[in-house]
Amino acid sequence: MTAVPEAEILARIRSLQARFAAASPPVDAALILQSLDLYYFAGTIQNCHLLVPREGRPRLLVRKVLERARADSPLEDVRPMTSLKALPGEIRSLCGPPPWRLGMELDVLPVLLFNQYLELLGGQGQVEVADLSRPILEIRSVKSEWEIGQIRAAARINDRLYRDLPELLGENLSTGELQAVLDARARLAGHLGAVRMRGFNMECLLGVVVSGPSGAAPGHGQFPIGGTGPHPALALGGDARKIERDRPVVFDYLANATGYHHDQTRMAVIGRLPEEAERIYGEMQGLLRLVEKRLVPGAVPSQIYEEALARAKERGLEAGFLGPPGHAVGFVGHGLGLEVNEIPVLARRFVAPLAAGTVLAVEPKFTHPELGVIGLENTYAVRAGQPENLSLSPEEVIVVR
Amino acid sequence: MTAVPEAEILARIRSLQARFAAASPPVDAALILQSLDLYYFAGTIQNCHLLVPREGRPRLLVRKVLERARADSPLEDVRPMTSLKALPGEIRSLCGPPPWRLGMELDVLPVLLFNQYLELLGGQGQVEVADLSRPILEIRSVKSEWEIGQIRAAARINDRLYRDLPELLGENLSTGELQAVLDARARLAGHLGAVRMRGFNMECLLGVVVSGPSGAAPGHGQFPIGGTGPHPALALGGDARKIERDRPVVFDYLANATGYHHDQTRMAVIGRLPEEAERIYGEMQGLLRLVEKRLVPGAVPSQIYEEALARAKERGLEAGFLGPPGHAVGFVGHGLGLEVNEIPVLARRFVAPLAAGTVLAVEPKFTHPELGVIGLENTYAVRAGQPENLSLSPEEVIVVR
Repeated sequence: MTAVPEAEILARIRSLQARFAAASPPVDAALILQSLDLYYFAGTIQNCHLLVPREGRPRLLVRKVLERARADSPLEDVRPMTSLKALPGEIRSLCGPPPWRLGMELDVLPVLLFNQYLELLGGQGQVEVADLSRPILEIRSVKSEWEIGQIRAAARINDRLYRDLPELLGENLSTGELQAVLDARARLAGHLGAVRMRGFNMECLLGVVVSGPSGAAPGHGQFPIGGTGPHPALALGGDARKIERDRPVVFDYLANATGYHHDQTRMAVIGRLPEEAERIYGEMQGLLRLVEKRLVPGAVPSQIYEEALARAKERGLEAGFLGPPGHAVGFVGHGLGLEVNEIPVLARRFVAPLAAGTVLAVEPKFTHPELGVIGLENTYAVRAGQPENLSLSPEEVIVVR
Repeated sequence: MTAVPEAEILARIRSLQARFAAASPPVDAALILQSLDLYYFAGTIQNCHLLVPREGRPRLLVRKVLERARADSPLEDVRPMTSLKALPGEIRSLCGPPPWRLGMELDVLPVLLFNQYLELLGGQGQVEVADLSRPILEIRSVKSEWEIGQIRAAARINDRLYRDLPELLGENLSTGELQAVLDARARLAGHLGAVRMRGFNMECLLGVVVSGPSGAAPGHGQFPIGGTGPHPALALGGDARKIERDRPVVFDYLANATGYHHDQTRMAVIGRLPEEAERIYGEMQGLLRLVEKRLVPGAVPSQIYEEALARAKERGLEAGFLGPPGHAVGFVGHGLGLEVNEIPVLARRFVAPLAAGTVLAVEPKFTHPELGVIGLENTYAVRAGQPENLSLSPEEVIVVR
């Protein structure tokens, strides 16, 4: 039994092949190189090239490690390719003689590496390359029931953190120290210890804990939660300041039990939550209720985002919604799965209707200059009739006296 | 006082400008985008574009967050650039009218993003782009005294793990659990909580702990230590098996206190180290002594690597040296600094002599099918006369009864 079932892999390959005609130019085969796309389409994260021809079965060419790739992958045709020089011959045997039209992951493949492949395959006369990243990400955005089950397994880790937090909050930790301790708890509860974010300069942590004004510092990343971080070399998340009484604490965690992420944010306080923070938290909960009921097939992400903005404005919370004024991010939720920044995004430029099975983290958050970040986040599966909340934790603010 | 001193930044900028004439084609300006190159040349990890003209002062164009970039960077000319559309005007104001010859980081810049920049700058008639990644990495490979001081700060974190390990080994943990606990210890001792590796599909952990045969599983990455890992979605490092008595335990950790990494591997055992493991460990120590004394200016990396291979062969340890037979990595040491996989590498294709100030992690390791991985690793600065060992921990195997 492989970690990713054979039926999953075969359905994914069929979806990919169905997209070849729509690519521009239409492609003869996909050449897949990125490790998480390999995990998705072949079931292994080993160092491989996956060739998916327009018809028929894909071929997994393994640089390292053949035995492990064979054990991981439900694909039938798994063979060694110790030298890159063998690649043109492999493409020829699946696609016939050149010229070839290949689809590649141009959103992540660096220029130098791309040029090496072009040269290896005979240059621009022999091979034409189309970007397949968008179709791949669209296919990945709709999860199967098996995949949603993997995200549920991750949700249990995030729930464990929610349950453990009261005990940890009593220990006079800084936000940075609490991150270190929560990360360890997550891993002892089954977190693999890695989180994946796609793209150039993308970096994220297992989790971020901020509290009070230092959490209100805008971040350089595309997150509605910032934080000064411990040092200019890691300018994100918690820092060395001790958590103070009566200050809102927000903890935003990415759990990963089997490759798939679950994203959850909850709040806590030592002492008593200031009334203003309580009021804003209630508003963010109201906003989450508004958004979550829209997570059904056919709803349009850009409209959901606009509705959330309109609601925040109507409630007098426009300045600070989704980030400090001038630094707000342009989304109220995002797709996630094998990577934490998948599509669709609940944002202005996403106008295609949601499909059943899409998984989205929704995170209404407000940045208050003195109170810091206030808000919450759940992960949902889009379902006909009613969305499924994949978060297991109560939304109650944790209060430690 | 900025985290990176002004004198450091100015010297780095001068080194970069001195390389412009040697680039192919020679460039008018560098356009630097990658976050760690930005940290190196501008002192900030905020979302910026750094323009370095052939002569005169560089300009840091900040997308997010201006105030933080201004606080971080010792550069004088730091200004906002909220829209990418302003980039051509900024280049024109520094370099005059097009055509422009720009140097960019083509080893990491993805194809789609590169194409967007090309189009934005007026296309191939207006702009010619040269790869500047090699010169940048060469400049970064030689560390200043200030940088070596940053690596010493990281070394103290690795030493703390060495001191804490005896206590932790008594707790009946799996190798995966021990990783989680060591990571937390490292962070409570000042580890920022992130490690950085450059390039496509590159991923690493704060540390890896393996013990016995599951550690002998070859890895898909370019590490002389593998491990089955917890799951096919993270096929590296420790797993759920409890550490057994009388089995060698190896822990390989990357510490990072201020952006710069220190790399160290040590061994431990609960009970008694098997005689064969003790013998091999002695051989790896002998190999480390052989390599370290060569880390002086003028020594040639490829020759050091060949000498290490010859010594392993001479001692009957060829099969298993630097990885399981058939899966050995082709290096016995590697550069490190802001990233853990810097140049030079003690490997066949690195024939340029070492310069004073180069920092290298040297890691003679042997994979034994039953005993697992046996070896050690120190981080050194190349110095005239005698290299400096930046590792603070004794090399004695930790023994817990």
